[in-house]
Amino acid sequence: MIRINDNYLKLEASYLFAEMARRTEAFEAEHPERPLIRLGIGDVTEPLPAACLEALHRAVDELGHRETFRGYGTSEGYPFLRESIVEGDFASRGVEMSPDAIFVSDGAKGDTGGIQEIFTTDTKVAVPDPIYPVYVDTNVMAGRAGSAVKGRYTDLVYLDGTRENDYISQIPNEPVDLIYLCFPNNPTGATATTEQLQGWVNYARECGAVILFDAAYEAYIRDPKLPHSIFELEGAKEVAIEFRSFSKTAGFTGTRCAYTIVPPEVTAQDAKGQKHSLQRLWYRRQSTKSNGVSYPIQRAAAAAYSDEGQKQISVLIDFYLENARIIREGMIHLGYSCVGGDNSPYIWVYTGEDSWASFDRLLKTAGVVCSPGVGFGTGGEGHLRFSAFNSRENVEEAIARLKEAL
Amino acid sequence: MIRINDNYLKLEASYLFAEMARRTEAFEAEHPERPLIRLGIGDVTEPLPAACLEALHRAVDELGHRETFRGYGTSEGYPFLRESIVEGDFASRGVEMSPDAIFVSDGAKGDTGGIQEIFTTDTKVAVPDPIYPVYVDTNVMAGRAGSAVKGRYTDLVYLDGTRENDYISQIPNEPVDLIYLCFPNNPTGATATTEQLQGWVNYARECGAVILFDAAYEAYIRDPKLPHSIFELEGAKEVAIEFRSFSKTAGFTGTRCAYTIVPPEVTAQDAKGQKHSLQRLWYRRQSTKSNGVSYPIQRAAAAAYSDEGQKQISVLIDFYLENARIIREGMIHLGYSCVGGDNSPYIWVYTGEDSWASFDRLLKTAGVVCSPGVGFGTGGEGHLRFSAFNSRENVEEAIARLKEAL
Repeated sequence: MIRINDNYLKLEASYLFAEMARRTEAFEAEHPERPLIRLGIGDVTEPLPAACLEALHRAVDELGHRETFRGYGTSEGYPFLRESIVEGDFASRGVEMSPDAIFVSDGAKGDTGGIQEIFTTDTKVAVPDPIYPVYVDTNVMAGRAGSAVKGRYTDLVYLDGTRENDYISQIPNEPVDLIYLCFPNNPTGATATTEQLQGWVNYARECGAVILFDAAYEAYIRDPKLPHSIFELEGAKEVAIEFRSFSKTAGFTGTRCAYTIVPPEVTAQDAKGQKHSLQRLWYRRQSTKSNGVSYPIQRAAAAAYSDEGQKQISVLIDFYLENARIIREGMIHLGYSCVGGDNSPYIWVYTGEDSWASFDRLLKTAGVVCSPGVGFGTGGEGHLRFSAFNSRENVEEAIARLKEAL
Repeated sequence: MIRINDNYLKLEASYLFAEMARRTEAFEAEHPERPLIRLGIGDVTEPLPAACLEALHRAVDELGHRETFRGYGTSEGYPFLRESIVEGDFASRGVEMSPDAIFVSDGAKGDTGGIQEIFTTDTKVAVPDPIYPVYVDTNVMAGRAGSAVKGRYTDLVYLDGTRENDYISQIPNEPVDLIYLCFPNNPTGATATTEQLQGWVNYARECGAVILFDAAYEAYIRDPKLPHSIFELEGAKEVAIEFRSFSKTAGFTGTRCAYTIVPPEVTAQDAKGQKHSLQRLWYRRQSTKSNGVSYPIQRAAAAAYSDEGQKQISVLIDFYLENARIIREGMIHLGYSCVGGDNSPYIWVYTGEDSWASFDRLLKTAGVVCSPGVGFGTGGEGHLRFSAFNSRENVEEAIARLKEAL
């Protein structure tokens, strides 16, 4: 009889959001009179920028006429979008990048989850802890992890992000092949300096590793000294792949568009020691498994780079960052130590107690939903993640309630 | 140094569409005065149905207001679409199916390419020849094929579709685990009867195999005796997964929406012989690697099931089927034997000569571009595929030119 991929059985049940929903619903059923405020899931709440809406309507109209109808695009995306990305996100910051390096997709989750396919199954993988669970789970599915012991898989190298190191994972003592990094970080909101990131790039160059750099939250960086892209670092093009998304930038969580940057210089070896371009491998993967992103959605994403689009996005991000400031200052006022929330929409709060217990306490005493840190890995224990994605009114009300309750 | 997935090196270069484009462009450069008619790539040409356009505009408007804005949906799709699919595509044909079995995605290419991930890497795979190349390539990438010898990979079982068997692959003599089938077929346009498909279902039940049934062209079936879904067959729910798409039905090749049906009954064993639900495994895969399909696109797909949508789609498909009839009858008039084109948008023409030579002859003598059969596998040699996706004017002109030239 046909057999399943047994690696799926190694996956620890992903209880985080399901368990949050279960506890939240139970509370609501018991206390229908107390409206909850949700600062848990990192999902945007404000309307799409007007420039994107206009572009969407225009593109939909094009699909209504034979002369302007569009069928299959290419798997890697339309030149108009790839060129806008290069100009708006890289040339504008002094980074030279060819549109050929840009692979448009329907989400960074699929890209960060799929990229491991182009590497051999016995790749040694290093992941931060706490971290976005997709990096770990997709490597477990592919057979790169052993069994789970107390929330950690054998065979993976965990890079601790702790209070002691300001939640910036340190370079490991052992050689690894593939390194996942995410700055501004999800869930901690911590940001890496140019010096810190350069250290990672140098390490990757020395040990022949590749860095997978998740920059989904780069638009929230306001400190002009912080790098937005790993490609701002010396020598990164030979050792790094970067992931970007329109989700948190232009509010595309439900609209779906993202992109991955694979420079022509980044390579890996085959079994005989011959080097191969990862750009060509990723192209082969994408062209075999995807017919690209919906045409109107690509037009909407490109409109994010227009002058009006950039202004509207800037207003949107300022709005969420002001929410983040209110949450951060509120929690500091309550005596907690926090990171994030300044160059990130997430605030990572140290409580020092079991994170599910903290979750329950905030839910029951204040009617505020946040994310328990342990949902992002064992390193998240003792912490809570607050998301700044909500209305101003709800954020202010949440902090007022917490001040009253705690 | 980090190593690549060496299986990628086994892939035979996918020359088909690239080589077609190269030869076509070379001809155009030499003969700018002769406009070409393209019946090669199977890409739709007519505008989206009005019902889908309206739904798209309405959904885009919803994204413009905080009250109606939508962020993340679920990876498997919105209930409104999954319920419309169940009602419109299954209940209407007497097939009972739960919305839980429907997994909405951005394309059948991604689904047929990704489904193999939930099976063990030493799965014995059977693929028709000729066939849509994605089935083969994604299994090669995953390590289920040996080396390529004369256009065929060792370790794969090829199911020949030939003139002798009316291009309906026969059940193999050896046991296999995973069987790809596609009816109406791409590239041959051949359709399978209830009896033939029942034979496959019975075989799968006997040997513990799973059938991956690609029904992307089911809407083109006009013969009321032919099954549209493998789930119309007795016992299929325990051994089959089906793939559907809005691409060729509602003209979504550039709009991107599809879905996969994984019934709760279909299972496979783990290494210890315990059975596991493939629906749960696919859910785990999808929820880990996808955040679902763009909200406006899901609204557009659901509108395809409205009364107006169904009428507009019916007109669209009748239009392409009339094109197909014109091509088929034209080629038969020229003395060729053909299959497809009656319950399919593809016409598979037997020429008996090298298919690239036929391609060149049609290009040079008539300015008509078709697809050389060998691009779909060694079994396609001696054939050409014509696509009915074009304007009536171009199709009539193409046949007139071929009649004059051949």
